[in-house]
Amino acid sequence: MTFKTAVLAVAAAASTLLALPANAQFAKPEEAIKYRQGSLFVIGQHFGRIGAMVNGKMPFDAKAAQENADIVAAMSALPWAGFGPGTDKGAPHKAKPGVWTEQAKFNEHAQTFKSEAAKLASAAKTGNLDQIKTAFGPAAQSCKSCHDAYRNR
Amino acid sequence: MTFKTAVLAVAAAASTLLALPANAQFAKPEEAIKYRQGSLFVIGQHFGRIGAMVNGKMPFDAKAAQENADIVAAMSALPWAGFGPGTDKGAPHKAKPGVWTEQAKFNEHAQTFKSEAAKLASAAKTGNLDQIKTAFGPAAQSCKSCHDAYRNR
Repeated sequence: MTFKTAVLAVAAAASTLLALPANAQFAKPEEAIKYRQGSLFVIGQHFGRIGAMVNGKMPFDAKAAQENADIVAAMSALPWAGFGPGTDKGAPHKAKPGVWTEQAKFNEHAQTFKSEAAKLASAAKTGNLDQIKTAFGPAAQSCKSCHDAYRNR
Repeated sequence: MTFKTAVLAVAAAASTLLALPANAQFAKPEEAIKYRQGSLFVIGQHFGRIGAMVNGKMPFDAKAAQENADIVAAMSALPWAGFGPGTDKGAPHKAKPGVWTEQAKFNEHAQTFKSEAAKLASAAKTGNLDQIKTAFGPAAQSCKSCHDAYRNR
């Protein structure tokens, strides 16, 4: 399996995982918290590298942009399983109670991000910086709106 | 630029990217440490779910095994960038100094894991538990031998 096919398979696979309750997947809440924090951090790093190119802070490198966008897209489905019932405590975290009291709204944010991340990966495949910029904006906005609503500073 | 020089330039560029020190990819050592810890934790969770099926602690679910193996394979290339020069300090971690003093050996471990993770994903595609068991052993051994050599308890 190439890295690329693996990445594509992950995106498909993880959407199923999304539907599973946390207690079916994590031994204890602490692990769910570490899992969501870890996966979001990794996503943030790769997303930020695309942002640096989009904002001109780093020279544009089409191959690197595509690799980073593929990782973001593949991992975009992962973190949400770590926000299952009972994972509002167990380790220090910044998630607001709304994650658990407004689950449907929170899940909508997650779906929006997944969809924008997929669009960004498609744009990155073109190797065209303008297309990447166009897709990057809404993807970044989907991060921000969810952080504003559900993450303490 | 001829086609040949273009190809050589790309090859040179790619090897440069691969060889980039952590400080070119991470804003500070602390981020590299969080990145490697986060990605390894996520990999460990998904790998552990396959292990639970292999060891009979969870009922075998061919689809879930494949999804988990795909995630492990896709992410198997990620953590190593977080062990770059200068990332032996900056945040609490369990990596032994050998990671930085025996880089070639450490990188061999990383390559072995990537290769075993790819084999496990191929085995999982068959949906056959015996084939998954056969591939799981060496993959688990590759985790263990690297942890034994380079991770403090």
